[in-house]
Amino acid sequence: MNNKQQNILIIGAGLCGSLLALRLGQRGFNVSVYEKRPDLRKTNLSAGRSINLAFSDRGNKAMKLVGLEEKVKALCIPMHGRMIHDKNGDTFQSNYSGRKHEYINSVSRNDLNALLLNEAENHENVNFYFNKKCKSVDFQNTTALFQDYDTEKDFVEDADVIIAADGAGSVLRKSYYLDKGFLFSFSQDYLTHGYKELSILPNENGDYLAQKNALHIWPRKNFMLIALPNLDGSFTVTLFLSYDEGNYNFSSLKTEEKVVAFFKEEFPDALLIMPNLASEFFKNPTSPLGTIKCSPWHYKGNTLLMGDAAHAIVPFYGQGMNAAFEDVVVLDAILNKNLEHWEATFKTYQKNRKIDTDAIADLAIDNFHEMKEHVIAPIFQEKRKLEMLLEKKFPTQYHSKYAMVTFNENLDYHVAMIRGRAQDRAIFNLLSSGEIAINHKTTNEDLEKFLEKIKHDTNQILEDQLKAGLKY
Amino acid sequence: MNNKQQNILIIGAGLCGSLLALRLGQRGFNVSVYEKRPDLRKTNLSAGRSINLAFSDRGNKAMKLVGLEEKVKALCIPMHGRMIHDKNGDTFQSNYSGRKHEYINSVSRNDLNALLLNEAENHENVNFYFNKKCKSVDFQNTTALFQDYDTEKDFVEDADVIIAADGAGSVLRKSYYLDKGFLFSFSQDYLTHGYKELSILPNENGDYLAQKNALHIWPRKNFMLIALPNLDGSFTVTLFLSYDEGNYNFSSLKTEEKVVAFFKEEFPDALLIMPNLASEFFKNPTSPLGTIKCSPWHYKGNTLLMGDAAHAIVPFYGQGMNAAFEDVVVLDAILNKNLEHWEATFKTYQKNRKIDTDAIADLAIDNFHEMKEHVIAPIFQEKRKLEMLLEKKFPTQYHSKYAMVTFNENLDYHVAMIRGRAQDRAIFNLLSSGEIAINHKTTNEDLEKFLEKIKHDTNQILEDQLKAGLKY
Repeated sequence: MNNKQQNILIIGAGLCGSLLALRLGQRGFNVSVYEKRPDLRKTNLSAGRSINLAFSDRGNKAMKLVGLEEKVKALCIPMHGRMIHDKNGDTFQSNYSGRKHEYINSVSRNDLNALLLNEAENHENVNFYFNKKCKSVDFQNTTALFQDYDTEKDFVEDADVIIAADGAGSVLRKSYYLDKGFLFSFSQDYLTHGYKELSILPNENGDYLAQKNALHIWPRKNFMLIALPNLDGSFTVTLFLSYDEGNYNFSSLKTEEKVVAFFKEEFPDALLIMPNLASEFFKNPTSPLGTIKCSPWHYKGNTLLMGDAAHAIVPFYGQGMNAAFEDVVVLDAILNKNLEHWEATFKTYQKNRKIDTDAIADLAIDNFHEMKEHVIAPIFQEKRKLEMLLEKKFPTQYHSKYAMVTFNENLDYHVAMIRGRAQDRAIFNLLSSGEIAINHKTTNEDLEKFLEKIKHDTNQILEDQLKAGLKY
Repeated sequence: MNNKQQNILIIGAGLCGSLLALRLGQRGFNVSVYEKRPDLRKTNLSAGRSINLAFSDRGNKAMKLVGLEEKVKALCIPMHGRMIHDKNGDTFQSNYSGRKHEYINSVSRNDLNALLLNEAENHENVNFYFNKKCKSVDFQNTTALFQDYDTEKDFVEDADVIIAADGAGSVLRKSYYLDKGFLFSFSQDYLTHGYKELSILPNENGDYLAQKNALHIWPRKNFMLIALPNLDGSFTVTLFLSYDEGNYNFSSLKTEEKVVAFFKEEFPDALLIMPNLASEFFKNPTSPLGTIKCSPWHYKGNTLLMGDAAHAIVPFYGQGMNAAFEDVVVLDAILNKNLEHWEATFKTYQKNRKIDTDAIADLAIDNFHEMKEHVIAPIFQEKRKLEMLLEKKFPTQYHSKYAMVTFNENLDYHVAMIRGRAQDRAIFNLLSSGEIAINHKTTNEDLEKFLEKIKHDTNQILEDQLKAGLKY
């Protein structure tokens, strides 16, 4: 069925929707994409600075699939590790991997989206329609109701299949939710924290005012600031802060004086290179951080949710876009199986995929606490040093949880989570009991023994978990 | 503030709403309760047979609080254990406790609700308004919009405080959800199984056709039938079955022949006393089984969700009504503290209470698998036998998870869950390793040793969990 000239309607021309359009176009489907926003290649949408995102190996696997690896590389700024800033402005770098070729990248959402739109549009069988807002989806009849923002008129489109890649606020998901006969399991979970984007501009020569090839973090336990580099020499800075709790929170930061005093106290080195802080703080919105999970993703063979529409996550593992891109890779592999109909395709897709998007959602929340708090704990820093040594000495044998999630694109997220958590637990136990310790005298033989111990204890933990889950 | 003559509007006159009205009436508040259904004391609502529920010690604690313990007792049929029916119609009973005074009760929802309505109405300051459907709540302004089913007119009521006890489909919860500015975390999770109510009628003399003082279960791994006694000699029977999966499911049971063949194969002894099966099966609805969690329960000091509106759970622990009643006990205790305003009261209430309703939600899902599947596993049966012996010999020292949840009304649900799960794990490990075994030669000294081992291993598991959660 998949090879017939079928009409596929995609809602949303964001990162997921435009990659999906490109890939389905490459496969020969007739693809129509409806997007509520104007064409981002023709208008400057972002009120503040453009947003950048972390791009890593899972996303890159999708770029390889569609033949765009090299073009995307040109948009990327490598970030080799976390540059951690303390309250005195002192910094230290904690790398993401002990293997030189493993790093993440800062990429502009708009640049990458524009590339995908251009490539998709090169296919005659792919068409984009902008300024068309989806209002609801009749998933029983595979039709969608749109409002044309230009003419202000409503119109209905039908298709053989409708795929919603319309983000965390998905209209198809809302239509599932509102249908009384459809048993739709659904969750939205907000953190107590929100976020606000700010910026560090380049100097007069266009040079970066902080180390370019790192993800900067100012971890302060209950809140944090981060910064990612842009190609133009600026950094996009994000403040993660509680709405209402603690000494400092978004509700109480009501005046420019308070904001500046807060930064002076907590992020003095950042303040020095953020002259626009006070005005940006009140110009830019404060946005919530939520996780969305749901099931089923599809209604029969008619409609399917993909990307954030199916599984929005918090940004702390830098995996939101990568997971959405991986969705397309997973769906593509199932299309290769030529199952008998779309319902079988969608069912198989969700069965294979949901366990992994659930896992990255949970890992992303773990990483919120890691970034704002754990990175400054001595035992955490010791663990990361040990892991760097192990990855360097035993590059094919040792992979930290971070490496499994971020750099091992052929390892499923849920496997990375289960193994990675057990391994973390084993290492913390070994470090806190003193069975493992590293210092300047640590030899290669020591490291070999440590690796064996970690492997052994990790397997023990995994076996115990398996036994505990198999009681009957 | 709580002692002032304030106007409290309650949405819903079900079990939770009418108990709450009674208690707040006793405390002297002006209480108005709006209910969308007609007065159940004047109309026979239930198309099929009346539904019965499990009533146990947490619910009873609330009845004591409002002075109704004896009146409720008169409505109760004690159920001392599970009567388990195999495919040959052979049965064995597995008691709920080794302590004679610990049992659960079957009670009619309507009888109990009518009692609470009558008692609440005895207070001049409590008024009920039936046939008034709540359409939405303006929680910023503490007003609710109703439709009067008699006059078909809409009207708005305001109050100092609005408390929604309007069940799993709560209108206040929906108003929270639909408000864009309000960060409302929310989940609804459906099981793959639905349920259908059926019945076993009494014989010509009005006598019960099965053992009266038990909860009957026909566990079949992927589905099950249960039956609870009613005062009139009948049983309310419930079939829990997948909607779509397995050899038998609701979608495929489309004809009377198929239904009867299914029961003949799987529940032959039940079929013999269910002459109305085929007609009831197609007359009565198939309903979903869902868990609802959300947060926050309140908006400032204006509005609050209670009972199923805040935390609907699946019925397998027999705790839905008990948890809703316990909500009233917990809120009442916080009212006793005379906090400065309603917002502090509601905040404290949720802070104390949500951890417990989350726990009973998860326990109830565990019990679905226990009832339909685990109860027939030899190791599970051995564990229950051991637990009965321990509870009998050491009545003040040993409490099974079931007993902690069901009979220890002063132990919070979340503590019962954490301790009970660790204890279950310890016992399963000890039984499967052979360190504990019971047979006709088991002596009191053996049991004492077993108890010590179980206590020791349980504590060890709890300590390990604590350590694993305290890594930084």
